[in-house]
Amino acid sequence: MTTDPLVIFTPSGKRGHFPVGTPILTAARQLGVDLDSVCGGRGICSKCQITPSYGEFPKHGVTVHDNALSEWNAVEERYDTIRGLAEGRRLGCQATVQGDVVIDVPPESQVHRQVVRKAVDGRAIVMDPATKLYYVEVREPDMHEPSGDLERLGDALRDQWGIPVVTAPMSVLRKLQKALRKGQWTVTVALHKGHQDAAHRILDIFPGFHEGRIYGLAIDLGSTTIAAHLTDLRNGTVKASAGVMNPQIRFGEDLMSRVSYAMMNPGGDVEMTNAVRAAINTLTVELAKEGQIDPSQIVEAVFVCNPVMHHLLLGIDPVELGQAPFALATSNSLSLDATELGLTEMAPAARVFILPCIAGHVGADAAAVALAEQPNLSPDLVLIVDVGTNAELLLGNTTRVLACSSPTGPAFEGAQISSGQRAAPGAIERVEIDPSTKEPRFKVIGSDLWSTDPGFAAATGASGVTGICGSGIIEAVAELRLAGLMDPKGLMGSAEQTGTARMIPEGRTHSYLLYDGTADGGPRITVTQGDIRAIQLAKSALYAGARLLMDEMGVDVVDRVVLAGAFGAHISPKHAMVLGMIPDVPLDHVTSAGNAAGTGARIALCSVAARTQIETTVRQIHKVETAIEPKFQEHFVNANAVPHATDPFPNLNALVHLPDVNFNTSSGGGEAGRRRRAANR
Amino acid sequence: MTTDPLVIFTPSGKRGHFPVGTPILTAARQLGVDLDSVCGGRGICSKCQITPSYGEFPKHGVTVHDNALSEWNAVEERYDTIRGLAEGRRLGCQATVQGDVVIDVPPESQVHRQVVRKAVDGRAIVMDPATKLYYVEVREPDMHEPSGDLERLGDALRDQWGIPVVTAPMSVLRKLQKALRKGQWTVTVALHKGHQDAAHRILDIFPGFHEGRIYGLAIDLGSTTIAAHLTDLRNGTVKASAGVMNPQIRFGEDLMSRVSYAMMNPGGDVEMTNAVRAAINTLTVELAKEGQIDPSQIVEAVFVCNPVMHHLLLGIDPVELGQAPFALATSNSLSLDATELGLTEMAPAARVFILPCIAGHVGADAAAVALAEQPNLSPDLVLIVDVGTNAELLLGNTTRVLACSSPTGPAFEGAQISSGQRAAPGAIERVEIDPSTKEPRFKVIGSDLWSTDPGFAAATGASGVTGICGSGIIEAVAELRLAGLMDPKGLMGSAEQTGTARMIPEGRTHSYLLYDGTADGGPRITVTQGDIRAIQLAKSALYAGARLLMDEMGVDVVDRVVLAGAFGAHISPKHAMVLGMIPDVPLDHVTSAGNAAGTGARIALCSVAARTQIETTVRQIHKVETAIEPKFQEHFVNANAVPHATDPFPNLNALVHLPDVNFNTSSGGGEAGRRRRAANR
Repeated sequence: MTTDPLVIFTPSGKRGHFPVGTPILTAARQLGVDLDSVCGGRGICSKCQITPSYGEFPKHGVTVHDNALSEWNAVEERYDTIRGLAEGRRLGCQATVQGDVVIDVPPESQVHRQVVRKAVDGRAIVMDPATKLYYVEVREPDMHEPSGDLERLGDALRDQWGIPVVTAPMSVLRKLQKALRKGQWTVTVALHKGHQDAAHRILDIFPGFHEGRIYGLAIDLGSTTIAAHLTDLRNGTVKASAGVMNPQIRFGEDLMSRVSYAMMNPGGDVEMTNAVRAAINTLTVELAKEGQIDPSQIVEAVFVCNPVMHHLLLGIDPVELGQAPFALATSNSLSLDATELGLTEMAPAARVFILPCIAGHVGADAAAVALAEQPNLSPDLVLIVDVGTNAELLLGNTTRVLACSSPTGPAFEGAQISSGQRAAPGAIERVEIDPSTKEPRFKVIGSDLWSTDPGFAAATGASGVTGICGSGIIEAVAELRLAGLMDPKGLMGSAEQTGTARMIPEGRTHSYLLYDGTADGGPRITVTQGDIRAIQLAKSALYAGARLLMDEMGVDVVDRVVLAGAFGAHISPKHAMVLGMIPDVPLDHVTSAGNAAGTGARIALCSVAARTQIETTVRQIHKVETAIEPKFQEHFVNANAVPHATDPFPNLNALVHLPDVNFNTSSGGGEAGRRRRAANR
Repeated sequence: MTTDPLVIFTPSGKRGHFPVGTPILTAARQLGVDLDSVCGGRGICSKCQITPSYGEFPKHGVTVHDNALSEWNAVEERYDTIRGLAEGRRLGCQATVQGDVVIDVPPESQVHRQVVRKAVDGRAIVMDPATKLYYVEVREPDMHEPSGDLERLGDALRDQWGIPVVTAPMSVLRKLQKALRKGQWTVTVALHKGHQDAAHRILDIFPGFHEGRIYGLAIDLGSTTIAAHLTDLRNGTVKASAGVMNPQIRFGEDLMSRVSYAMMNPGGDVEMTNAVRAAINTLTVELAKEGQIDPSQIVEAVFVCNPVMHHLLLGIDPVELGQAPFALATSNSLSLDATELGLTEMAPAARVFILPCIAGHVGADAAAVALAEQPNLSPDLVLIVDVGTNAELLLGNTTRVLACSSPTGPAFEGAQISSGQRAAPGAIERVEIDPSTKEPRFKVIGSDLWSTDPGFAAATGASGVTGICGSGIIEAVAELRLAGLMDPKGLMGSAEQTGTARMIPEGRTHSYLLYDGTADGGPRITVTQGDIRAIQLAKSALYAGARLLMDEMGVDVVDRVVLAGAFGAHISPKHAMVLGMIPDVPLDHVTSAGNAAGTGARIALCSVAARTQIETTVRQIHKVETAIEPKFQEHFVNANAVPHATDPFPNLNALVHLPDVNFNTSSGGGEAGRRRRAANR
């Protein structure tokens, strides 16, 4: 009795005995080895490329001889001639087992490639998209056994791929017959099955074997910016990224102004809906152009957004979100046709997935952050802060997760700041002030040099220094405090009080001159007392939200802090703590998650399992409503000081020296003086 | 121990003991008695009206005392004052059990009323529509337990009506929040669940309890006419019926001309699609106006149509239907949004159901005939003939059902006939010719008088006699045969040969003068030799189809014949047999089913179970393709004679005398003469 040859797959280590003549693809399937194939083993798609290894493998206890696989065949020869097959590679569907063999499946031949790897917890997202390509051979019509072309395509998908039920939208049904005949009864279909779908849906159909790719958009629809990633749905690669301003800004800078606009102007909600949809259509075309693909190759889009953006995208009047009890029209995730949202620049049958909302003030963007950062899987207590025009906060661990939102306003994004601007080349993003000389130095976006370094002006280029962005103003205010130029109440001193001519009077208050480019026709950039007040309001709202969640959780400290948000990656943890934006923790316990909401959108785009997961997670998150909680106001007032008034900050004290200054003693000057005068009237 | 009172329901006979104080509606539900309620027993909808009976009921063994039910209460009083409650009626949700009682549920309080009763087999269709109204009370939003309004509406439907999952299209989601607040957290929803749907879908939402009704359209989309019934979805009542010409006629009279138009003219299919959709939209508005409802109350439409109309309605190029193997793009039934078909005059979320097609030449109209006539349930062998521009034939019994279509052309509908016209007032629909005098008499549509009756001219009115319609020309040709004016080959004799001056020469052939109104400025209506040839071609195609099915079934006779089609009801069975349209059966075995396809559409509209049923039935029907069957041509040639050349017709011979004439003997005249001359050249 002879034993069938042994086939060992790496890196999985799966092994089994197979009769001589078994194709490697067949062996892989029987063992559950992750080896890709779009054409079902017909030697067309070349997705099942493998690398045989030859020689002695003591670890595996086998010797692989040169004739362990069948000879290079005509199909492989043709493929190599036309497209080229890398050295040592074989097609898994053509090469058959002849003897014991070790087969390596390279990453690009795996379906379930890891795509989004999270550094923090080592967790990896594997490709498991809702839409995939399938190649099938369809039975020709027979007058004597009449059935529709769609029904025979369904039979083929069932028999060749085990897909039980398929449906086709009208756009596909209209091109079905031509595609089948042009492909001589072979077609490639883009099949979609959402996490709650009972059946697969054909999103597109191509004659014969389709070499093209299909793409999805991960869209972070923010109040101020719409950012999108064009993602290859076969491997998760981001092909192009782009952002545009949300054109709704002309109807109101923050969310509540837009809700008010809808309330005050009949049809105002429709105007805003049309504006944002048009912007997304434009962005879609731009991304396709940048990615050098046809927009019709985009078959899916995933949206994350706050509740007001959510309703305005859907065309739902957001009026209920502007008043207690802040009722959402719908809170669950949504799966829709792109055409239902007027998104006409994608494939005609493209699908849209919108992540679930947590509550009336905590939206799908917060859900996306939860999906990306998974506080529910954190053993230690983590505070995740997604900084934006509206800040979302998540506090939790494996036991419990709390969420709230806090109306920080747009100051952190450089708006409402005298020299503020959006993050763009020329914007000051890093600031240091020497505590002894009180002289500043700074970096601008687009250059790695400090402003005091030789060659800074040349390196900064034509744009020069144009203004100060969110992370820049945060650092500037914190540095003013560290340099003793601003007191704990947020009041800046005069030139006399501080001993530096950079403090210049501006009305009854003082400003700090950060940069004067007027001699060269550039701007004069100062940090005004008004700028500091705006930042104080924003950071107090953020901190008060965090404190409220900590109260609800019954804790005074958190184990770690994650800064998320479009500019979360750019905030200096030290300066955030000096400012009192976040609770006091050891500095190395503050990490940046970058645009976690956008990452969450990409995860949901690449993994249909993640869609189920976030729906479950969202239902377990406990929502805390800041708008009606009296303690929020109390925390807000206490958080006005820099860092803050009542909570201790041992970690910060160990790290930096906070000068003991008070600029409220001068006669008549400052806010306190004004208040006194007013009281004496 | 006392026994709870006995409650007996009629007409169901269901009975049970219930504690004193049990509402009658509750008792009915527990016993599974069919008692309607939209408001769930809240005394709002009045759908649960019942009639208690008092006195001795020896049959049931009970005596019902005057106090068997609770007293008339304030809810009933208010309802009676505002809307009036018929004498003896009570509201089932208000009246409670106090003693033994007999309760009659009147038909209008039953949900599952019988609506379409078939005379032939006594089978009744009970109301079981896909869309129904439900009244619910929805929990108000709570900031501390945030959830969307849709999710709380879903909870209410689950808790109050046992409906597990609901979805809402965008159009409903957009009006959801306003409706809930306007109705003070009570709403009525129109819920739809198609026969293959996993979830209920909200098609519309109304604040509070909605008194209005919801409607559906049953649409018979024919090549020549589009006929529709506006049907009340609560009780199946037809509120209005109307028909319009299919505007596609301008692209071709019959199906193949339209397929050719699509093939010859790029974009021609789109033109035809747009034309038919516009006509349906117009018809929708007209029907709503006639039925005095708002078009937005129409939440469903069911379509039956032949395959070419099917593809053109869906916007699919019908080119494949014009050539073997006549492949349909899709053959299964379709459930769609009305908007996907450009049907914009109904409710924005209205749903469309299209019956399945049997084959490339036998469409959803034939499926609808099968649903209405159920040959698969017939113990005897029945031939069902749906007469139209294209005829559909079904032959079968409980063992087996065969189907085919036959290209009769439009002659049976009055087209291609010299004095032909569509069935309309003034059209001749009945014809008799006295065999001895050879004088005709006729009836026109709109009058019950024969043309020879006194007062005919006055009764016919202003329209007078305008032409001859399908059933009229069939009778005329058969009567010409019976009167000895036309021979078995279809050739008419001259005045000399026949002895009547009504035979007038027309070129080399003769016409029969049926009516001469020229003296009064009216038309001169003749039956020409060309008219007879057109009818012969049409009836030969029909008969050949029937014979082909009989061959396939292995029979020489059928047990009965059903004439269906828009004008099937108007065809005289005797004349149809004289003409040789249908196989020879006893005259009383020929019945008319009226517009069976339209009836099938109504059944599918009123019963979601019927949709499942017809899908099963259609898969069991064996299709015979006439276009490629050589025997079809043979049968067609043999069927040219009147009645026909080769098959015996004992039943017909027993019924009428067919004169033994032959007008082919005259020198030079007639077709045979022409043939001879041509051969001698």
